[in-house]
Amino acid sequence: MWDCLWMAPRLWMGGASMALIEDAALAVQGDRIAYVGAVKDLPDAPTQLAREVKRYADGLLTPGLIDCHTHIVFAGNRSDEYQQRLAGASYADIAAKGGGIARSVRLTRSASVDELYAQALPRARQLVADGVTTLEIKSGYGLELEAERNMLKVARRLGRSLGITVRTTYLGLHSLPFDAADRRAYIDAAVNDWLPHLASEGLVDAVDAYHEGIAFSAEEVERLYVKAAALNLPLRLHADQLSNQQGAALAARHGALSADHLEYTDARGVKAMAGAGTVAVLLPGAFLVLKEKRKPPVSALREAGVAMAVATDLNPGTSPLLSLRTAAHLAVSLFDLQVDEALRGMTEHAASALGLQDSHGTLAVGKRADFVCWDAELPSDLIYWIGGTLAREVIAGGSVIQHRARANGTSERY
Amino acid sequence: MWDCLWMAPRLWMGGASMALIEDAALAVQGDRIAYVGAVKDLPDAPTQLAREVKRYADGLLTPGLIDCHTHIVFAGNRSDEYQQRLAGASYADIAAKGGGIARSVRLTRSASVDELYAQALPRARQLVADGVTTLEIKSGYGLELEAERNMLKVARRLGRSLGITVRTTYLGLHSLPFDAADRRAYIDAAVNDWLPHLASEGLVDAVDAYHEGIAFSAEEVERLYVKAAALNLPLRLHADQLSNQQGAALAARHGALSADHLEYTDARGVKAMAGAGTVAVLLPGAFLVLKEKRKPPVSALREAGVAMAVATDLNPGTSPLLSLRTAAHLAVSLFDLQVDEALRGMTEHAASALGLQDSHGTLAVGKRADFVCWDAELPSDLIYWIGGTLAREVIAGGSVIQHRARANGTSERY
Repeated sequence: MWDCLWMAPRLWMGGASMALIEDAALAVQGDRIAYVGAVKDLPDAPTQLAREVKRYADGLLTPGLIDCHTHIVFAGNRSDEYQQRLAGASYADIAAKGGGIARSVRLTRSASVDELYAQALPRARQLVADGVTTLEIKSGYGLELEAERNMLKVARRLGRSLGITVRTTYLGLHSLPFDAADRRAYIDAAVNDWLPHLASEGLVDAVDAYHEGIAFSAEEVERLYVKAAALNLPLRLHADQLSNQQGAALAARHGALSADHLEYTDARGVKAMAGAGTVAVLLPGAFLVLKEKRKPPVSALREAGVAMAVATDLNPGTSPLLSLRTAAHLAVSLFDLQVDEALRGMTEHAASALGLQDSHGTLAVGKRADFVCWDAELPSDLIYWIGGTLAREVIAGGSVIQHRARANGTSERY
Repeated sequence: MWDCLWMAPRLWMGGASMALIEDAALAVQGDRIAYVGAVKDLPDAPTQLAREVKRYADGLLTPGLIDCHTHIVFAGNRSDEYQQRLAGASYADIAAKGGGIARSVRLTRSASVDELYAQALPRARQLVADGVTTLEIKSGYGLELEAERNMLKVARRLGRSLGITVRTTYLGLHSLPFDAADRRAYIDAAVNDWLPHLASEGLVDAVDAYHEGIAFSAEEVERLYVKAAALNLPLRLHADQLSNQQGAALAARHGALSADHLEYTDARGVKAMAGAGTVAVLLPGAFLVLKEKRKPPVSALREAGVAMAVATDLNPGTSPLLSLRTAAHLAVSLFDLQVDEALRGMTEHAASALGLQDSHGTLAVGKRADFVCWDAELPSDLIYWIGGTLAREVIAGGSVIQHRARANGTSERY
């Protein structure tokens, strides 16, 4: 007998087909999906099949959303700098006053695990409130062993307390810290000392690096990748965001799960990604906030068959974006994604970017029971409506983790 | 003795100064503000001054937000068409299948007042949930007397049930309806018959028209304006959105409260608006969704001293935008507004666009007690953070109309 059987007027399973199951049922056993299909195809009456039966009179079920690229753990924010920069202050002006990423690093280092957690939790709750059940979280504002460890511990704690899947990513090569005496020594420590330490503590699910003219070179990234491969950790890359560094090709050559940003990626990079099965993670929040003009090569990625994901890139400097649906809308409006691509980009393909395609991202028997009941009729509603909170109930691992009260006497139809 | 005294660590009064009052107090008497200033400047101990004292241990108080341009009352949505259009369907294809605005008109006409209300309420609640205390609502999907009346009645009812200020705008000249036998006869009825009827019923606070090559001409708009002036109703205009129609100058010449959109407004239009004190209402949602390239002349408006407001333009065809803060962010990122301009654009200047500058838009003695306690430290946080819900408590006319539960044990600092 199943633990619970959920019924709703419509269900989108996720994946390539946009077809909906009408009058749908989804059964949960433990934290897994035991059945997904039409109510009429159930082998018996619902109450004979499950200990508990829940019925949504209206609403749409979809897979839980997956935010596959965030820097959600940090101390302080930088809205004052944001205002100054828009008013004409240069990055150099701000850096001279101790601002920019150095400020986030200083504040993050001086915060305790509890303080970091208290600041990150409401941000994560914003995402969960609108349907996120899987969250990737990077380190990279510590840039020393202890503070990197603290960030990753907070990431794990967020997963436990919110009841969601959290995947941690070690981003020791985010930026050379302001107090690094020696570039090579910093990279040595970050790659050969801290990474194995943190991995041995079970804090690292993948590694990432910021590959850019202003950050780390291909050679430096490769030192990280070699070490990560020895530790059997999957790879990701911040690639070609501000200039064409052949970052996508670099990521693909090493079999990385994903290459992220990609505004300047060329045909060669696209081809390499297609060959390697590397997912393209699009981050329109940073593009919007930085007022960039150059868009990622979406048509070329589409034609080459590269899977495209969309994420918030939630971070204090370039993407203070608290809504994954808004990121998906921006990917459509700014990057010319199709609606179905944006939907897969925050479900199935986001799962692939995390290496979770076998357990997350679609509603299928045996996968984790992560799903959302939306105040919506069609999956396209989730992209069309910008902002607001459309998730009515969020279920992760079979448990309701978020419930939004509804207006009295209304159907909450959008 | 005051009814209630609120205290918070920081308060922004709204208006030109971005200065904050630290350790602030705001007193409410009836639905009005009786005191705003520092706690230390109060004439006596708080408990001697007010029957009730409320203290926020953290958070920022600001004026309630004002969404001065919405089409929030309509039946159905058009997310399916949105998806089709992005996939390559032309407006003509969609119109041929009965889609586009004609679909919203048909569905709105066939809905009862209760049905329209039930569909609009959750949308309005989304706005209120993140700090909106004043909402402008246009008719214009009825395009016949009875349905236009229904829309305006629903607008009034939303104001009552949510406890917010609603300003209604008659937009009979939104689009020539698909079933209009004769253009001139339609305009005659809309201007000379329906408008005086609805105004006499107390349903109309202002009039607006869609002035565009594909909608109504200057001559047609002027017929409406002459009638509205005779009825003593203030004027607004959808101006120069898709082409330069000299709409801004038209609105200014008639002393309109606002001209809205303005992507194609030229120097002459800007000058006319400055001379007339007509507010520029910027609507970046439609710009984003329509993937427009031409931006409104923000620099010229700024230099000419034209007040700029920002609104959601919430509507099913071109701006399904459920967040005024997101509209303000988009005005910064897409239209190059400054952060302080965006903040005034959804408070003080939005009040001016509605003719409510004497009673709304800033926190000052005698004005309506509409304010918000935000999980924020600085006003810039409200622009910086994209999406999510930052309002902790929303107060309109002195009453708490929205309260958001906080995560246990966290400071909810962003």
